[in-house]
Amino acid sequence: MNNKPKLRIGLIGTGFMGKTHVFGFASAPKVFDLPYEIELHTVADISEEAARKAAHDFGFAHATTDWRDLVNSPEIDVIDITAPNALHKEMALAAIAAGKHVYCEKPLAPLASDAEDMAIAAEAAGVKTQVGFNYLCNPMLKLAKTMIAEGELGEIRGYRGLHCEDYMADASSPFSFRHDPAGGGALADIGSHALATAEYLLGPITEVLGDCITMIPTRPDAQGGTRAVQVDDVGRAFVRFANGAQGSIEGNWIATGRKMQHDFEVYGTKGALSFSQERFNELHFYSTEDAVGRRGFRRIEAGPDHDPYVRFCVAPGHQLGFNDLKAIEVAGYLEAIAGLRAEPFGFRDGLRIQRLVETIQASSKDRCWKSVPS
Amino acid sequence: MNNKPKLRIGLIGTGFMGKTHVFGFASAPKVFDLPYEIELHTVADISEEAARKAAHDFGFAHATTDWRDLVNSPEIDVIDITAPNALHKEMALAAIAAGKHVYCEKPLAPLASDAEDMAIAAEAAGVKTQVGFNYLCNPMLKLAKTMIAEGELGEIRGYRGLHCEDYMADASSPFSFRHDPAGGGALADIGSHALATAEYLLGPITEVLGDCITMIPTRPDAQGGTRAVQVDDVGRAFVRFANGAQGSIEGNWIATGRKMQHDFEVYGTKGALSFSQERFNELHFYSTEDAVGRRGFRRIEAGPDHDPYVRFCVAPGHQLGFNDLKAIEVAGYLEAIAGLRAEPFGFRDGLRIQRLVETIQASSKDRCWKSVPS
Amino acid sequence: MNNKPKLRIGLIGTGFMGKTHVFGFASAPKVFDLPYEIELHTVADISEEAARKAAHDFGFAHATTDWRDLVNSPEIDVIDITAPNALHKEMALAAIAAGKHVYCEKPLAPLASDAEDMAIAAEAAGVKTQVGFNYLCNPMLKLAKTMIAEGELGEIRGYRGLHCEDYMADASSPFSFRHDPAGGGALADIGSHALATAEYLLGPITEVLGDCITMIPTRPDAQGGTRAVQVDDVGRAFVRFANGAQGSIEGNWIATGRKMQHDFEVYGTKGALSFSQERFNELHFYSTEDAVGRRGFRRIEAGPDHDPYVRFCVAPGHQLGFNDLKAIEVAGYLEAIAGLRAEPFGFRDGLRIQRLVETIQASSKDRCWKSVPS
Amino acid sequence: MNNKPKLRIGLIGTGFMGKTHVFGFASAPKVFDLPYEIELHTVADISEEAARKAAHDFGFAHATTDWRDLVNSPEIDVIDITAPNALHKEMALAAIAAGKHVYCEKPLAPLASDAEDMAIAAEAAGVKTQVGFNYLCNPMLKLAKTMIAEGELGEIRGYRGLHCEDYMADASSPFSFRHDPAGGGALADIGSHALATAEYLLGPITEVLGDCITMIPTRPDAQGGTRAVQVDDVGRAFVRFANGAQGSIEGNWIATGRKMQHDFEVYGTKGALSFSQERFNELHFYSTEDAVGRRGFRRIEAGPDHDPYVRFCVAPGHQLGFNDLKAIEVAGYLEAIAGLRAEPFGFRDGLRIQRLVETIQASSKDRCWKSVPS
Repeated sequence: MNNKPKLRIGLIGTGFMGKTHVFGFASAPKVFDLPYEIELHTVADISEEAARKAAHDFGFAHATTDWRDLVNSPEIDVIDITAPNALHKEMALAAIAAGKHVYCEKPLAPLASDAEDMAIAAEAAGVKTQVGFNYLCNPMLKLAKTMIAEGELGEIRGYRGLHCEDYMADASSPFSFRHDPAGGGALADIGSHALATAEYLLGPITEVLGDCITMIPTRPDAQGGTRAVQVDDVGRAFVRFANGAQGSIEGNWIATGRKMQHDFEVYGTKGALSFSQERFNELHFYSTEDAVGRRGFRRIEAGPDHDPYVRFCVAPGHQLGFNDLKAIEVAGYLEAIAGLRAEPFGFRDGLRIQRLVETIQASSKDRCWKSVPS
Repeated sequence: MNNKPKLRIGLIGTGFMGKTHVFGFASAPKVFDLPYEIELHTVADISEEAARKAAHDFGFAHATTDWRDLVNSPEIDVIDITAPNALHKEMALAAIAAGKHVYCEKPLAPLASDAEDMAIAAEAAGVKTQVGFNYLCNPMLKLAKTMIAEGELGEIRGYRGLHCEDYMADASSPFSFRHDPAGGGALADIGSHALATAEYLLGPITEVLGDCITMIPTRPDAQGGTRAVQVDDVGRAFVRFANGAQGSIEGNWIATGRKMQHDFEVYGTKGALSFSQERFNELHFYSTEDAVGRRGFRRIEAGPDHDPYVRFCVAPGHQLGFNDLKAIEVAGYLEAIAGLRAEPFGFRDGLRIQRLVETIQASSKDRCWKSVPS
Repeated sequence: MNNKPKLRIGLIGTGFMGKTHVFGFASAPKVFDLPYEIELHTVADISEEAARKAAHDFGFAHATTDWRDLVNSPEIDVIDITAPNALHKEMALAAIAAGKHVYCEKPLAPLASDAEDMAIAAEAAGVKTQVGFNYLCNPMLKLAKTMIAEGELGEIRGYRGLHCEDYMADASSPFSFRHDPAGGGALADIGSHALATAEYLLGPITEVLGDCITMIPTRPDAQGGTRAVQVDDVGRAFVRFANGAQGSIEGNWIATGRKMQHDFEVYGTKGALSFSQERFNELHFYSTEDAVGRRGFRRIEAGPDHDPYVRFCVAPGHQLGFNDLKAIEVAGYLEAIAGLRAEPFGFRDGLRIQRLVETIQASSKDRCWKSVPS
Repeated sequence: MNNKPKLRIGLIGTGFMGKTHVFGFASAPKVFDLPYEIELHTVADISEEAARKAAHDFGFAHATTDWRDLVNSPEIDVIDITAPNALHKEMALAAIAAGKHVYCEKPLAPLASDAEDMAIAAEAAGVKTQVGFNYLCNPMLKLAKTMIAEGELGEIRGYRGLHCEDYMADASSPFSFRHDPAGGGALADIGSHALATAEYLLGPITEVLGDCITMIPTRPDAQGGTRAVQVDDVGRAFVRFANGAQGSIEGNWIATGRKMQHDFEVYGTKGALSFSQERFNELHFYSTEDAVGRRGFRRIEAGPDHDPYVRFCVAPGHQLGFNDLKAIEVAGYLEAIAGLRAEPFGFRDGLRIQRLVETIQASSKDRCWKSVPS
């Protein structure tokens, strides 16, 4: 009864993000009129038990402990990588070499040079890619982008962007791969979201002045000792945008009490926007065109007027959840695979974020402004 | 690979709520470890085209224009009714007679007497039922209920509950089945949610003093004329709870600007709670046990500590959406069908809400306090 | 250098409200161009020490323990009564008989019949009166009233007004004059503010259905025993306004955690307002005339566009405080004494509030709707 | 009856800030038990009419057009300077030379070197000084400082401070003294408040990395032409505190829609604070010591527990206004003059702010980190 072509997914990794991807694959076809029927073909995990359990729980037909099985299978169209960051490059390059489309969780790779290799390979092979910056899929961010693009705020002058959480605030939480230089630190891990949102809304950042700080110098290791932390707990930058605006960015994983402070404010000549991911179904809008004595930040609640909210619910105010953002991401990616639109956020975009992160880190180290390579 | 027994769904109705149910069926198995494998068997709609399209879009194997096909099919286990309210009773009784479990959108029936027939039939047949009061599935409401039950607020004294929207605020919006006495009006349509939440949190309401008002006396009909509206646009009640608390309830569908003002406040001897569905991933808690000079309403953000949030996301602050509440509802219902728990909100509970609505309406008409039949 | 006529004040009472009045007398002349020079002439308190201390601290020239000294003094123009409610009538009538203007803290009198005697006497004597409903002096309330009057919300349909605090939430707080029937209870004490605001904004309430509840039936007395409480801890009403709108009102002094929940919401055909005294320098405004997809409640911050804010500060967002409201009240009263405007809120208005309170209490007792005497 | 010694005030300047000071002088004696009786002796303005009007309106006994009259008068104890910034130094030095105490509006002087001359002169003369950083007088800031000092947040790690408004957002608003290099720009004008609050709470800033930007390069002049603006519209800095914390600061006068965004967030190992001057009677507090599943930012409303709120009002939640902060400032200053306490914020403190501003400006110009001279 369903005559759509199948798109067969091979998922690598079954953790937090793997599960989130599966939620996206499950709900996207119900919410959107996708160009493909999604088939959950095989899931890979290093542990056989985890792979089997994931196959069972998530509805994959097959399980494997060797991710290369996925890459080599002629029955799989998309390789979905939610494995640790350090493995992204090898997996993605292998998948690209096998002609697969690649969906990769963020960050694309620990180093921009690796990310660049991945982007170039994908482009050369003509496969479609997606990096999981799902906060960008929020209808309220699309609304913000539209309002900015259509001049509702006038000329943009200023920006302030944050992504602060507290999951590393406890100094006794043990050293992990995230504290390894390859893990990148707070700026790379979550400041990257703030950077992605900033460029999504205002376009390219051209110059940065960074300040990356390690506040918790050592953390317990698994052997009962301590290990020196080399990555930043807080990473900030002053920035300049190509459109003439200026602003600041902060990534911070020791912000006690903050669970999802992915916030931004945009100031233009005619208006302003204020947003917090803590209440991500709202966008606050100030317009100088409102009548005198009647001006103020207006709390716009997400509703059917804000694409693609209406696909989830025909009535306003009902609210999307985090996993719904993943469904939007999946839908956009499938449309890109079908050639119906450009990649929403492909490897080239993921590379861009790594470039920004590395430029800020270099600026912090050298204690001076740096131009961002284009 | 999946050895769970199948639970085969027959869905009647393909509109707003039908779609929402499908979202729940799609995501619940990924989020929860359900006792059954859900099979979307057949979807029914009066229009053949709508039925076929729904089957295609939603992933049902079959489509029909006759809901009786579902009821009569030996291949279907659960009849899911999202058809107009006036049809719920006939459909549900037929399904119960055929030994099916019945999942019915709210309100259970326009009249409490009908709802009672349905509840009695279901109990007699031993089938499991569910009525779709999905706001009750919010982890933050479960948290509120737990806090109240465990005495964190002390003895409960006061309650204020609302459900206000503006979808009928425009006097030029045409007369519809919702304006028919059988439709019930604002109190029945959405005030019912406020009543459900009130009893979910505090237990039975014993007495009510109602005030139901029609503010827009006529609405345009399809013939270019107008038609008198006989239902309330605003329905309120003062209430007494069996636990000794007092309070008020309001349902209102002409509250200009309100999209989802399903709010409550609970006041106890030791603390208070404040909640708004406009920001339903938060619960505000005041405790007199906090230190002097440090007291205030505390904004608790939903997270893994608030069951069953963690099934959706392992990190706090990511937020559930409206459709996620439906997944929780589906999961609870399936567990009830499997005998693992009591019905979360069965026909008996749906009847209860209708009783409350009718008692308030009668109180308003007779302009005096009424006891709520138990 | 100052050629204004003097207005000589005699203050009775030196407690919370007496002090607040003095703040108003001190700041009003600096803020406003008043028609009189205020002279703090004499202060009266039953304790000689309190009277002397108040004279010293507040800057009165004289002190007395006999309030009749003030009434009889030819050197005093205005008698300002902040003594306990039960004494208001006797003091006011004596002052009126002596031809003094009378400024009286709310409530005007425990009984409407007493308040009526006072209003009639004042009108017969031609003296100017003021009752201290200072929340009405907020520039944001004036803005709200203006917006309603000028049709910015369209036709008004609905209203919800509260005044909830928690100063009587502790059941061990001792029996006081406020728990005496003459004290009136929560509805009279603070629900009266909610009533005053409702009529200030929407005009007369014509019908009420009351619900007054005593939740803490006894309180400790000074002798180590307990004493029965006969007044309401919570007083509510459903109301009808002469303008066709309907709504509800609540006064509540056991709302744990609430310090100043004097809130209202107004719903019209074209817009809505939402306000909380907890943040009384803001008014939230929703307009259906905003563009589609850009609508939302707009947080208007008090500023120079909102009369008389600019008298306090020429820049927006700096905020008025509670005592500033008293300065506005004083200024309005002095202008009324000078014949420059009508009494902002005279004894006739104070009587009106008592009538509303008593009608709601009677409605609650008789358990039926009551018309409010005009 | 009042035996306190008199403190005779000579005020220079009758504009926005002059008026605010007068409000402070008027209300402080009513609110606090001051060590002096304040006498408003003489007011000076360059315009005779303005001076006379101010004397009349504000209650000064005398008026003059020559500020030197005040300095030279043996009848005046305190010279209160609210004249344009460029005149502060000359006036203050003359007053100090005459042995007067000096109360000076912020900024103390355009250049730190001037401010230093002033501070040294005052200290040498032994007169008491006060600079008008009135936001520091907020009871909620005192609460925040106390909580930090007493370890309620644990060890402080991070800080984010803003002071953003939009009074210069309109590019057509004319060139004024504020746009002159001596005026200092947004960082000096309002970013200085953010700096003052930061050091008030956390102690000295030791290093800064500045970024000062002119976004509106020219403004209309009075001759119908345009004039180049040399000061910053946005001034930011990354900062290090002596206590080991790191953070950021922003001053911005082109933040469209913002009227009083004087905000801060403080993150410690055990808790966090969040504050906005937009709602300055609230402080939000997160504590990791709250129970699991019950944590969240707690909205503490100002009340009698927060010194010196109780002097204004004995009941919580009534709120202070902007002018009340000035009364607190006046009271603190008078106590310092009487030797009862240290200067709350004297010339040495005002100099400190200028040093911070200049160091940030120099850092921005030189594009590198700078140590802040102690």
